[in-house]
Order: sequence, then structure tokens, then C-alpha cells
Amino acid sequence: MAGEPTDHALERLVFFSDAVFAIAITLLVIEVHVPHVAHGSGDAAYLQALAYLIPNFIGFIVSFAVIGLFWAGHHRAFSLARRYDGGVVPWNLMLLGTIAFMPFVTAFVSAHQGARVPAVLYWSWLLLTAALNLKVNSFATRPPMVAPDLPPETAAAVRRRSRSVVLGAATAFAIAWIVPVAAPVGMATMPLWRWLLGRRVKRS
Amino acid sequence: MAGEPTDHALERLVFFSDAVFAIAITLLVIEVHVPHVAHGSGDAAYLQALAYLIPNFIGFIVSFAVIGLFWAGHHRAFSLARRYDGGVVPWNLMLLGTIAFMPFVTAFVSAHQGARVPAVLYWSWLLLTAALNLKVNSFATRPPMVAPDLPPETAAAVRRRSRSVVLGAATAFAIAWIVPVAAPVGMATMPLWRWLLGRRVKRS
Amino acid sequence: MAGEPTDHALERLVFFSDAVFAIAITLLVIEVHVPHVAHGSGDAAYLQALAYLIPNFIGFIVSFAVIGLFWAGHHRAFSLARRYDGGVVPWNLMLLGTIAFMPFVTAFVSAHQGARVPAVLYWSWLLLTAALNLKVNSFATRPPMVAPDLPPETAAAVRRRSRSVVLGAATAFAIAWIVPVAAPVGMATMPLWRWLLGRRVKRS
Amino acid sequence: MAGEPTDHALERLVFFSDAVFAIAITLLVIEVHVPHVAHGSGDAAYLQALAYLIPNFIGFIVSFAVIGLFWAGHHRAFSLARRYDGGVVPWNLMLLGTIAFMPFVTAFVSAHQGARVPAVLYWSWLLLTAALNLKVNSFATRPPMVAPDLPPETAAAVRRRSRSVVLGAATAFAIAWIVPVAAPVGMATMPLWRWLLGRRVKRS
Repeated sequence: MAGEPTDHALERLVFFSDAVFAIAITLLVIEVHVPHVAHGSGDAAYLQALAYLIPNFIGFIVSFAVIGLFWAGHHRAFSLARRYDGGVVPWNLMLLGTIAFMPFVTAFVSAHQGARVPAVLYWSWLLLTAALNLKVNSFATRPPMVAPDLPPETAAAVRRRSRSVVLGAATAFAIAWIVPVAAPVGMATMPLWRWLLGRRVKRS
Repeated sequence: MAGEPTDHALERLVFFSDAVFAIAITLLVIEVHVPHVAHGSGDAAYLQALAYLIPNFIGFIVSFAVIGLFWAGHHRAFSLARRYDGGVVPWNLMLLGTIAFMPFVTAFVSAHQGARVPAVLYWSWLLLTAALNLKVNSFATRPPMVAPDLPPETAAAVRRRSRSVVLGAATAFAIAWIVPVAAPVGMATMPLWRWLLGRRVKRS
Repeated sequence: MAGEPTDHALERLVFFSDAVFAIAITLLVIEVHVPHVAHGSGDAAYLQALAYLIPNFIGFIVSFAVIGLFWAGHHRAFSLARRYDGGVVPWNLMLLGTIAFMPFVTAFVSAHQGARVPAVLYWSWLLLTAALNLKVNSFATRPPMVAPDLPPETAAAVRRRSRSVVLGAATAFAIAWIVPVAAPVGMATMPLWRWLLGRRVKRS
Repeated sequence: MAGEPTDHALERLVFFSDAVFAIAITLLVIEVHVPHVAHGSGDAAYLQALAYLIPNFIGFIVSFAVIGLFWAGHHRAFSLARRYDGGVVPWNLMLLGTIAFMPFVTAFVSAHQGARVPAVLYWSWLLLTAALNLKVNSFATRPPMVAPDLPPETAAAVRRRSRSVVLGAATAFAIAWIVPVAAPVGMATMPLWRWLLGRRVKRS
């Protein structure tokens, strides 16, 4: 559809993406089911019922942080774009598809804490999401989409950040095979990867 | 309500439509229910539980792609519109209604893989959606809504694309009667229909 | 919060309202539960399962049309507003609350077709929604919110339309007490009420 | 990401927040489950089924009002901001996370009316939300985000209002320990706190 690359088309793409991010992040709560405690039970019974849901709370927090992180990255990358390019649409839709599916993998891993298959599925899903995120954010911060007057270093920093998310997800994925419960720790390596990628740039 | 056809009204219509598309596409995941695997089961039990959900995963992917396709078409058609016309509202609401109902037909066909009635219902629903989509996109790319300086060929291309979606859905619908599982293949004929419709235009 | 009545505040109010309308209208589908048909059943069993859901389909269609109607009215009224006034916020929130609750009353009436209490609840809820809708739309089409250069007749037409929705809902409510299933017919009297209200204006 | 603090980035942040508020407020209805009344029952059976849901209706109304209140405060604070600052993003995400989790605590307290643990959880959650709300709204109404020409008193009034929400939530939290059902009354002390905070300012 050459000929009508307007700012308006870019805005609508960003808007649609924001809406999907916002809905997926808010739908996470639906998978945390309310426990049934018998009428007239003491406080201990309620506390026990809540304790039983701890894996679900952790799942909610981890996935909320992860989707929030992807949204913040998308937000940052597209704030540097000025022109719409139709080529980004299929990649962006695939990214939104992986985000929209997060409530399922979250609920699956929360319901079977410590099991290997759900953890590996969760973190491989995140690795796929991170790879699509890198693709989309690179698209938005390169010609023809990127603002022409943007310092190349700013665009490079966005891509470096997206790459560090891929490496963090890969680390979590590797841990999930061995100690499923400890996999979220892998995401905490992200700042390390970002620092390493930043150093490599400075050296060259 | 003649007299106040403002750009703002057009923007709000587009916004509302985007929100419904975004919510419907993200709600698809709700119908993929988390399987319950007994605590302490081996990896094989988990993999089997996931294998059992394959029709649901396929349903999610097909419907996500289909709603994404309709959104992209709506996005494209309305990016060519400049003026609001109240006449498009009832048609657009009917289109959004068919989109909002997609999670139901998707869940119905996913839960009964290979059965004829759910497959025929799914693809006849898609045919209805495609017909409404053609109506709405034609409305947006014709006077009084269309940008007055738009090359007629650009508007014609949008309508041709919408027509090819109708023909693709009709093909899938026809296949659903005979081999229900193979119906999604019908959608893959869309590029063929678009090429044929394009040829017919060139010849004339 | 006198002193900062900006267009931006108005836009955000409209946006938030649109989002709630869009989510409520799309959530209606969640209450249409997928029937379970035994694997290997013939076409007749599937058709019977669908026939059993007809009240749910009707509920979806009626509530979709009703929410769509309220959205279109809100859209029209606020397209005539130019200035933000904080006084509209509590009324607008109450209107959105009644809209957000529609999926519950819809599901309740669909699950108990022909019963009087669910039908009376549904239509009294709609009457309340219509009254709040009239209040909000009147607010938006009167000073200080309304565009100063708007012909008074245009603003009056919006309010007349909102009044006809109240009268239509009241008619449906009255019918619900006597013949619960026939209540939706009451909404069809809306054009009649609009015509009558219009005549009264012309005469005076 | 110094160097690109654009109005557009601020708008997108506000938009994403609005979407999460709107979705969370509309999802509250999902936790109000439709009661099943036997076919052919009299009106009394239906009324009894509805009476049984009264705690759920109250939960819906209280949480709808609470989320609406937080949205209105966010709306007001950000309408005074002019510049984007990345530092607000993590705090805003945490605020949205507490809002998105409201449907769970609402459903938990509604299902176990009068029990202490669910009520204390609900109101401690609200206290946490109010604290994050105060942090985010203070951020938006201070340099570098706030409009430079804003009268300091207007910004101070927003923060005072946010503080009164914290104090109202703390009061409700304290009541929840003693008389769980009466906790919502604590929120009604908000205007009192606002008045007291306003007096303290005038005196100094």
C-alpha cells in the first residue's frame, strides 16, 4: 500500500499494540481463581487457602513484570519512529500474538509449580516473544521508520536493550531445564547482558 | 446528525473499532483452558496434556491470524478516509459484533475437532464477517468518506483485497462441508483470488 | 480543580469511556459457554446443542445492539462538546458502571428465558442506564461543555434522542412484567418516541 | 533514554494506563457468577438467588467506585503534566499491577462476607494501591513532568487529594481488623481527611 505512509497509520498501529498489551496484562488476573473456604472457618483456614495460591501470585507478578517490560520497550522503540511502514505489521501481529498467549502459559506454570515441562514451555515462549520483540523494535528504529534526525547511538541503545532481553530469556530458559522453580532468576541477568553488550560497543 | 462531520468523530469511530478488535483477539486465550496434570507426574504426562490441546492452539492461531487480518484491512481502509459519515456506524457495529463473537465459534470448533457442524458454523461466520468487512471498507474508501485527493486505484485495491477475503472465506466454507479439518487451507487461496481480481482489472 | 479545563482532559474522558464500552460489548461473548457434545456424535446432536443456546445468542445480539446504541449516542453527544467540565465525571462513571454490569444481567436473562424476575431485572437495569445516559448526554450538550457555536437545535436533537431511549426502555420494562420474552420489542418503539418528541417540538 | 522526552511518549503512557484502568474496572463483572435457578421456579426462587449475590453486588460497586476514583485522580494529575520522564514508568506499572489485581481481592472478599482475612487483604491491598497512587501522582505534578506555568497550589491540591485517599484506605484497613463488613465506611472519611489536610496548609 505504497503512497499513504501517514503518521496517523503509525499512531493507530501503536494504539492497537498498546491495547493488546494492556488487555493481556490485565487478563492475567482471571487465571487466579478465588479459593473456596467453608463459611465460618477461622483465620487459619483463609491464610492456608491464600498460601496455596502463592505460585499463582508469583506467576501473576512475573508475567505482569515481563509484559510490562515488553510494553515499555515497544513504547521506547516506537517513540523514536516517525514514519509508518507496512512491513512491520506482520511481525508486530506475531509479537502481539505471543503476548496475548501469555495468560495461558502463566496459568499452566502456576498450576504445576516445580514441574519441568510447564516451566520449559513458559520460558521458551518468552524466548520466542523476546526474539519477535527484537525484530519489531529493530524495525521501528531503522529506516524507513526511524526519525531521520535521531542520533544513531540512541537507536542502537534500544536494540541493545532488546538483545539483552533475548539473552535474559535464554538464560532463564536454560535454568528451567535444570531447576524449574529458579528460572525467573535468569531474567535478573538482563542488566548484566546489557552492560556486556554496551562494553563491546565501546571497545570497537 | 448532519452538520458536524468532524475528523474527531472519525478518530473516535476508528478508536472504538480498534479497541473491539484488540479485546476480541486477546480474549481468544480465555477459551484455552489449562489442563490439570496430577502432582508428581512425569514429563510424558505433561506433554500428553499439551498434545491434547493442539486443536485449541490451532484454533487460537487461526482466529488470531483472521482477526489480525481483518484489523489490518480496517486499518488500511480507514487510513484512506478523511471525513466522518454516520451511515457507516451501523455496518461497522455489525462487523464488530461478528468479530466480538469469534471467541465463541473458535472455542466451539476447537473443542470438537473434525466435526462438521462446528466447522461449517465457524467458516460461515467468517464468510459473514468478510462480507460485512467488504461493506465497511467499501464505505470508507468511497465518497463522502474517502480523502478527495486519493488515486482511485489505491481505493480500488483496498476493495479488491476485501473481496479476496470474501472469496477465501467462501472457499474455506465449501471445504468445511467436505473435509472439516482442512477448511483453514481455503484461506490460503486469498492471494490467488487477489491475483485473479487484479488481472481482471488490468484486462479491462 | 478549576483552572485547567483542557481539551486534553475531555479527550481522555472520552477515551476512557470508549474503552469501557468496547470492553463491556466484547465481554458479552464470555457468557456464551461452549456446549459439550460427545465425540463422534452426528450432525443432529451438534445442531441440537446450538439450538439449546438460542436464548444466549439472542441475549448477545440484544445487548450488543443496546451497548452499541449507547456508545453511538455518547459518541454523538461528546462530538458536540468542546470544553471539559469535572462535574460530568461522577455521572459518566455511573453510566459506565451500568454498562460494565450489562454482561451479568444479559447472562442472567439468557440462562432463564421466559422467567419474569430476570427479564424485569434486565429491563429495569436498561432503564437506569438510559436515565444516566440522558443525564450525561445532556451535560455534554449544554454549557459549559458544548461547543459555543453549535446550533441549539442540534444539541436539542441529541437530548431528544436520549429521551426516546429512556421511553423505549420504559416500554420494554413494562412489557417484561407481562410477557417477559417479548420485552425486546419495546426497544423497537424508540423511533416512534423520537418521532413523537420531534412533533411536539415543531408544534411549539 | 535521555534526549527524546516527547509529548507523544507522555500520551502513550497515559493511554496505556487508561486502558488498564478501563479493563480492570470492566473485568469486575466476570467474578459475579450467574446463579442457576431450576427451570419453572417461581419469582421467589429468583429473588432469593439474587439476594444471595448481594455481597457480590456490593463488591462490584465498591471496587468500581474505588478504581473509578483512582482513575479520576490519575486523570487529574496527568492533565497537569507536560513532559515525559522515564522515571515514572516503573512506579506507574506497579500502580497498574495493583489495579489489575483488584478483581481477585474483590471476588475473594465478596465470596466470604464478614470473614476477617479476606477483608484485611482487600483493604491492605487498597492501602498499597493508594500509596503507589500518591507516589505516581506526586511524580506527575512535580518537575520535570509538571507544566512549568502551573500554580504550585493546584499541584499541591492534587497531592493532598492523593494523601487523603491513603488516609481513607488506612482507616478502612483499621476497621477491617475489627468489623470486617464495616470497612467500606472507612473510605467515606476521605473528605474529612482532605479537609484536615487543607486546614493544615492554610494555617502554615
